Amino acid sequence: MEDLQNDLFLRACKRLPVKRTPIWIMRQAGRYLPEYRAIRAKTDFLTMCKTPELAAEVTIQPVDIIGVDAAIIFSDILMIPEAMGMHLKMHETQGPVFDTPIRTETDANKLKQISANEDLKYVLDAISLTKKELNGRVPLIGFSGAPWTLLAYMAEGHGSKTFSFVKKLIYNNPELAHNLLNRLTDAVADYLSAQISAGADAVQIFDTWAGILSPRDYLIFALKYVNQVIEKIKRNGEPIIYFPKGVHYRMRTVADCGADVIGVDWTIDLAKARDKIGDKVAIQGNLDPTVLYAEPSFIKREAKKVLLSYGNGPGHIFNLGHGILPDVDPSHAKALVDFIKEESTAFHYRDRVIQ
Amino acid sequence: MEDLQNDLFLRACKRLPVKRTPIWIMRQAGRYLPEYRAIRAKTDFLTMCKTPELAAEVTIQPVDIIGVDAAIIFSDILMIPEAMGMHLKMHETQGPVFDTPIRTETDANKLKQISANEDLKYVLDAISLTKKELNGRVPLIGFSGAPWTLLAYMAEGHGSKTFSFVKKLIYNNPELAHNLLNRLTDAVADYLSAQISAGADAVQIFDTWAGILSPRDYLIFALKYVNQVIEKIKRNGEPIIYFPKGVHYRMRTVADCGADVIGVDWTIDLAKARDKIGDKVAIQGNLDPTVLYAEPSFIKREAKKVLLSYGNGPGHIFNLGHGILPDVDPSHAKALVDFIKEESTAFHYRDRVIQ
Repeated sequence: MEDLQNDLFLRACKRLPVKRTPIWIMRQAGRYLPEYRAIRAKTDFLTMCKTPELAAEVTIQPVDIIGVDAAIIFSDILMIPEAMGMHLKMHETQGPVFDTPIRTETDANKLKQISANEDLKYVLDAISLTKKELNGRVPLIGFSGAPWTLLAYMAEGHGSKTFSFVKKLIYNNPELAHNLLNRLTDAVADYLSAQISAGADAVQIFDTWAGILSPRDYLIFALKYVNQVIEKIKRNGEPIIYFPKGVHYRMRTVADCGADVIGVDWTIDLAKARDKIGDKVAIQGNLDPTVLYAEPSFIKREAKKVLLSYGNGPGHIFNLGHGILPDVDPSHAKALVDFIKEESTAFHYRDRVIQ
Repeated sequence: MEDLQNDLFLRACKRLPVKRTPIWIMRQAGRYLPEYRAIRAKTDFLTMCKTPELAAEVTIQPVDIIGVDAAIIFSDILMIPEAMGMHLKMHETQGPVFDTPIRTETDANKLKQISANEDLKYVLDAISLTKKELNGRVPLIGFSGAPWTLLAYMAEGHGSKTFSFVKKLIYNNPELAHNLLNRLTDAVADYLSAQISAGADAVQIFDTWAGILSPRDYLIFALKYVNQVIEKIKRNGEPIIYFPKGVHYRMRTVADCGADVIGVDWTIDLAKARDKIGDKVAIQGNLDPTVLYAEPSFIKREAKKVLLSYGNGPGHIFNLGHGILPDVDPSHAKALVDFIKEESTAFHYRDRVIQ
């Protein structure tokens, strides 16, 4: 942490005293920024992910423009299945699409065995370059989709309301499901370890589709593999953030997964979450992303409620409860960041005394 | 209840002792049944809703074919906005679509003031006819979307991942949002009262999009109006079921809404839900709808877990946690119904003693 000019985010991950609450925003390097759209206009999404110079450039944009306390590498949660040979298309409205989903043994056999250092080198290069260009201004976060969320996308081929294909897979062919989850667990752990080696100061595991499972199935098909990923990640104290979107149950068990930080969406009451898990891990979240559609005065009122809900002391990383939406006014995002920087100092009076 | 040959559902709604757990299935009159598809092939969805003979026929199909303990009138949760003049199209894959969403004062002014007896007479006629044709075999359930869920569809024009339009409406023009919610509250109460007058033995309020709100917004924009709807419904003891899909917080407050039954989706732990609210109201749910994709032996194991989770005694109505999916094998639905009828008797030993 010594080399960083702003280590608030990393300190908060470790529940260390901080002078104010750090803030970053999921999807902060994205379409809501005109500066991002200017680059995106000239090339496609995947090329941006695979060109370290472009990835580094858009990764740093929100640090310059809206002043967040951490950068997150510009990439996608689905880089692993893409590297395994699945053809990934990014649709502006529909989201990511795989042409040939994985639903049978035969489909699964086509997946390539990958090593992050070889097959995802462009992401690692992007991280190294971004670290260099950030020059210690703020920490850099790496990330991947969690095994369950990767499997859900791989089986469906795209987002879904019902997730019929992946549910059929886990109920009717649990052996194949667990085989794939095991392969994905190894790949995610290897990938996140390599991102840390390349310079990531922290890594986040996105379990975007965790919430479509019943509590029991979540433990069996999602959390179990996250536990294994975290155990396998090679790190030197770099914090791990686990974000199981939509999961509102078994929060103590979730908090025991080995991550330093648990991300929570906007349907979670932060006070209750802290009450349950706050002494074990830090918490990241949880402003409703659509609040940024409102005027800054309203945004500030709602952001204040989030700060009040978490309460005093360390261990809170301010963020939205999900990614920033593409049609948000960047000045609203900046207003939120400015407000948190100023207003959150009041919640860390005791931290400053300890420090 | 005296005129009914099977009053298990109504007794369970009132938490009265029953010899076994009653079961019905959301969307039980629907596309998974070949008998339904045969009728649907000849006409469109809305014509079916508006033709009492057709609506009655498909309403009764699952009573005959899979043996459920209650019928639910074939209709749509969006009949109120449709009657208010919004043009509703039912897309097989995309779901319901309104061509001209309601997002401004001007849009709202175009909505017609409706009275259920005049503007939704076809639904009331369908209920009367179905009651006659059911001839007391099982009770008949009427229903509507909740004010919040109607507003969400009306503002978006269709389902959504982000619900940006309705969120913009409540954050940037709360006055218009509350005006619309007040109008919808009156319309829903009038409509459900008329359904009861026409012969519905119970009514269900579907709050399908309740779960997209933060806990605080849910109280302000959704639950408040459900409370009012329930207070305004004219009834003579007919039970009210409220199903706030995706709501996992403030369950005690939800249970105080005045409904006799609270519906819960498959992400809710039934034992915990009963622990919190089980002595106030009955609970309906909560098998994951995708479990019906599995083989009957697996379905039975999962259904047994739901029964065990609720435990002994009255007050449980077995159902899925959301509507049955169109590609489910009807024999799987039948296997579930048969299993619950047989297996659930063990959970009502004491009920039989009391009875």
